Amino acid sequence: MSTAAANPNETLSSGQAPARPGPQAVTTWRPLGLDTARITGGFWAPRQEANAAKAILSGRERLEDAGNLQNFRIAAGQGEGEPIGPIFADSDVYKWLEAVAWEYGRNPDPALLQMQREVTALVAAAQCEDGYLDTVVTLRHADRGRYFDLPWSHEHYCAGHLMQAAVAQVRCTGDRELLGVATRLADHLVSTFGEDKRHDVDGHPVIEMGLVELYRETGNADYLELARYFVDARGHGLMESYGKEPTYFSDRVPVREASSVEGHAVRAVYLAAGAADLAIETGDQSLLEALAGQFDHMWSTKTFLTGGLGARWEGEAFGDPYELPSDRGYAETCAAIGGIQWAWRMLLATGEAHYADAIERMLFNGFLSGVSLSGTQYFYVNPLQVRGEAHPDGDRSPAHGRRGWFSCACCPPNLMRTLASLDGYLASSDAGGLQIHQFAPAQLTSPALSVEVATEYPWQGRVAITVTAASPQPTALSLRVPGWADGATLSVDGDAEPVTAGEYAVVERVWSVGDRVELDLPLAVRHTFADPRIDAIRGCMALERGPLVYAVEQVDQPDGVDLDLAQLVSTADSHSEHRADLLDGVTVITAAGKAPSAPKMKGWPYPAQPGDLTGRDVELVAIPYYAWANREIGAMRVWLPATSA
Amino acid sequence: MSTAAANPNETLSSGQAPARPGPQAVTTWRPLGLDTARITGGFWAPRQEANAAKAILSGRERLEDAGNLQNFRIAAGQGEGEPIGPIFADSDVYKWLEAVAWEYGRNPDPALLQMQREVTALVAAAQCEDGYLDTVVTLRHADRGRYFDLPWSHEHYCAGHLMQAAVAQVRCTGDRELLGVATRLADHLVSTFGEDKRHDVDGHPVIEMGLVELYRETGNADYLELARYFVDARGHGLMESYGKEPTYFSDRVPVREASSVEGHAVRAVYLAAGAADLAIETGDQSLLEALAGQFDHMWSTKTFLTGGLGARWEGEAFGDPYELPSDRGYAETCAAIGGIQWAWRMLLATGEAHYADAIERMLFNGFLSGVSLSGTQYFYVNPLQVRGEAHPDGDRSPAHGRRGWFSCACCPPNLMRTLASLDGYLASSDAGGLQIHQFAPAQLTSPALSVEVATEYPWQGRVAITVTAASPQPTALSLRVPGWADGATLSVDGDAEPVTAGEYAVVERVWSVGDRVELDLPLAVRHTFADPRIDAIRGCMALERGPLVYAVEQVDQPDGVDLDLAQLVSTADSHSEHRADLLDGVTVITAAGKAPSAPKMKGWPYPAQPGDLTGRDVELVAIPYYAWANREIGAMRVWLPATSA
Repeated sequence: MSTAAANPNETLSSGQAPARPGPQAVTTWRPLGLDTARITGGFWAPRQEANAAKAILSGRERLEDAGNLQNFRIAAGQGEGEPIGPIFADSDVYKWLEAVAWEYGRNPDPALLQMQREVTALVAAAQCEDGYLDTVVTLRHADRGRYFDLPWSHEHYCAGHLMQAAVAQVRCTGDRELLGVATRLADHLVSTFGEDKRHDVDGHPVIEMGLVELYRETGNADYLELARYFVDARGHGLMESYGKEPTYFSDRVPVREASSVEGHAVRAVYLAAGAADLAIETGDQSLLEALAGQFDHMWSTKTFLTGGLGARWEGEAFGDPYELPSDRGYAETCAAIGGIQWAWRMLLATGEAHYADAIERMLFNGFLSGVSLSGTQYFYVNPLQVRGEAHPDGDRSPAHGRRGWFSCACCPPNLMRTLASLDGYLASSDAGGLQIHQFAPAQLTSPALSVEVATEYPWQGRVAITVTAASPQPTALSLRVPGWADGATLSVDGDAEPVTAGEYAVVERVWSVGDRVELDLPLAVRHTFADPRIDAIRGCMALERGPLVYAVEQVDQPDGVDLDLAQLVSTADSHSEHRADLLDGVTVITAAGKAPSAPKMKGWPYPAQPGDLTGRDVELVAIPYYAWANREIGAMRVWLPATSA
Repeated sequence: MSTAAANPNETLSSGQAPARPGPQAVTTWRPLGLDTARITGGFWAPRQEANAAKAILSGRERLEDAGNLQNFRIAAGQGEGEPIGPIFADSDVYKWLEAVAWEYGRNPDPALLQMQREVTALVAAAQCEDGYLDTVVTLRHADRGRYFDLPWSHEHYCAGHLMQAAVAQVRCTGDRELLGVATRLADHLVSTFGEDKRHDVDGHPVIEMGLVELYRETGNADYLELARYFVDARGHGLMESYGKEPTYFSDRVPVREASSVEGHAVRAVYLAAGAADLAIETGDQSLLEALAGQFDHMWSTKTFLTGGLGARWEGEAFGDPYELPSDRGYAETCAAIGGIQWAWRMLLATGEAHYADAIERMLFNGFLSGVSLSGTQYFYVNPLQVRGEAHPDGDRSPAHGRRGWFSCACCPPNLMRTLASLDGYLASSDAGGLQIHQFAPAQLTSPALSVEVATEYPWQGRVAITVTAASPQPTALSLRVPGWADGATLSVDGDAEPVTAGEYAVVERVWSVGDRVELDLPLAVRHTFADPRIDAIRGCMALERGPLVYAVEQVDQPDGVDLDLAQLVSTADSHSEHRADLLDGVTVITAAGKAPSAPKMKGWPYPAQPGDLTGRDVELVAIPYYAWANREIGAMRVWLPATSA
């Protein structure tokens, strides 16, 4: 691996970054890659280690057990039987292959390469002569033919994930076999789909991102043009007759005209991320502005405190503005991942700090809640409340805890590829300097400036940055000051100065090796309230500390506290304490609360007077939301009714 | 039609009542039928007239247009083409036939009889030689065979509705052709299903009610036994492998062991109603007690203020206890109907007033909201809130108003049969007297006592009862005093005495023709609150008056009132006024409110302080919930935040 990064504008193929803009791309910043941004310890490192040592390894077994790999063998003529699993089963293999590739970029373990090559060979063997590849459609629906039901058949969806995996392989291992498969498939798609060819789009976006990445890797503008076609073909009623409303498929309004996200949440944010890639590569400012407006509307009216996206189980969909129920909030793990991908592209394009804030919120909360501390048990759905009497119903139900896999297994390999490529979201560079977006112990290398970051974030608020290499010209070091970090200070050579929350603090100077900058972020417990239009949490408050949203879980509470009735005292101070022994080490919050007994009312629950909720004083204990459901499963709440007495 | 009713214990076949217990049945009371209980005017009469003159007539056209009738023609060899519509399409025809029969019982219009006979002949012609009948399965799934997928194929569901229609025909028209079809089908089912035959149950209950009714009409105990089998076969995992959790199908727990309702709401309440029929006919007290416990749990933790049932769109299902979201509450019209059917059977069995209270609440609110004032436009879903920015998505979405029909058209003919048979739910009798459960201008005839009821209910609270015939023995007249009617009085011969809300007021005496009893129910506007465990409406209040739940609809409010932010002043008096010109005549409520401007906060909607909701004083206008969405569609709320200033 290279240790000195080339200017990303100078070459097509270096830089082990996901969503790495091409040479003509119009962005404010360029991402570092896994070769130039490396997490070296702290909060994320053990999670990435578990991801590598356990999740990715067991992922292959899961794909074997669930039949995904066997489907490829059957299609390749190397196995027998009927294909099993959902119609998009191939995509799980591709996401897992992508995770293997990024992980190899972080840690070139020959065992990873061997797994990758075995599975890649299997994928290649299953490809049709003319480039078409979808094992389930080929084997299960031969009578109906290719693309017989594109809104549901997920053929482009699988292709998009294949392309992303192929690009990751080239960038991180140099292997080009999967890239060959992907380009043959892409060439087949180019010859098949378009305004003057088959005029149709897949019901589930992701191919837009895949094609742009493939264009970046190969320079073949046909792929960029096909991505453009798929983005622009949406919103013209192509999917009206497919059994769900066009809204579900993000097909009600053209992307450029939409003012919000709607419908199936993962579909919507994948589409937006792909459209952002397109805008970046084509310098399409009006498309970028449309996407910025959609992101703002989503973030201000359709996002849970955890950064979770998607209010509805029905259709796994965004709800109406301010429809954000704690109990039935869907907040699919994959939607948080798509949200991170979208926000990252917007951040690179615009240089606006709020996108990096959004990434942080999603990463530490709605994304990370999707995987257990062990790294191998998953949540598909990430609500903000589970009641004491909640009844588990289906493998996605959070009421019975995390699962090792799902009948629809999109989330686990999606988590794997994101954790394996997380280093790529830390920082970016431009000709004039280095920008640090996420805080973790790390080595960051950019053309103008290289630094080492030391921090105990998110448990402690100090981020210490030491220059390890610098150009002789004045260079800007930009540090995101999170929007929640009122009172933050930055010290350069020991002089602490206040910096503004929600912006980048920029220090421009001629740097010397050993120069040290310290960002201090205040980590007092925050009492957080909600816009009154969010009816589901009227009168409630939540606890936050730093980037972490907290949850009150039944197992931590004093005996006799009924979480369905407990309240938080909004006017009392809350306290935090680090507990190395708990949940692999977490800072817990202790907050004053009230524990009413169950109301005496029985029968009809709508009385002529509000219920009396006076109750005994208790200390409620909150843990980081991401860490819930790692012990016994019980009631859990992020939002509790606030009382002032 | 007979005018003097026989003792229902004495004969099998008289009494035009739905769910009429047989001679061996163990009940506290026996229902009157359409021949002995007749609504003569008032609130319900014009709704029944619209049902007869418009809905039932246009229903036949709808069934023609949607293909349901053509499916029968194709199956009968009288037509060509592919079957269309959902797999349960036959059931819409049967429910409509049932509506025609009850309506003929109310009003023997020869045109109804002609329609009935034409469609019945078509149904009979489509029946297979051996009694099997399901046009869609026969025509569309011939390759897979009968009962290929019973949890989804709805063959017993269709059969159950056929049986109910056949019984209604016999009771109201004397025609026995459909009864012949139903008994041939039932005999086929008896020979096919059972513990020692094919051990399987339909995913969608209703056949349990149908079989018990068929038993009551024919005296064939095989049908009762098959109903017993279907009730007891549930809850033993027969449907675990059918793509949804057993919960969805009410198949997780045996009926006799369940402590609550769960899963698909219509399935759950139909099953419970059928089990209640079984308990009544077999005198099974332990089953009845289990059902009573389930009803109580549903009513105290899983019922909306409107009596609506089913909290979730996903699976059209009951949620966890206290999961009752106003915005996404499903509250399917069919679930309210099933709830009424269940409560009616429990009322007859137990004589407990709270079941009649429940029927009243469902009838006037969550049931009646399902049909427009015109009688021909329907709601499938009946939420308690629609936001100003709600986006319609799918034909069930209340955000775009009522629809003339649905792709899944279960609700419209279900409304038709219920409105046509509504007279049957007014009153009951026993050897010692007459019980009046629902208040409407009516003539009620029972063996011991006949009366005429005059009332302007629900607009006015006086119910005047005049004796029209009486036995010479002391006889009890029992009048339900609704649970909400604190302060009610009863006057007999002019002496008003207080009576207890939530019980039956019983006057036992030797009655003379012309004796007059007046029940006075207080109709002051009620401010209603909620159990604090119902998180979705924390801090809110609703307006009620008599049996009616009220809704605040955008179109009635002063300019500039944003219903998403409006509040009700809980401490101020509210006023009611009858408006004959509005919505076919409704009493409106005017209540003191606050109209805040939209909060200044933008962007991230979770601030460090609660939003400031001070706003200008306004008078908010509320209309009965059932009448909403009969003008322009806009925001609507039953629950609004309560403020005390």
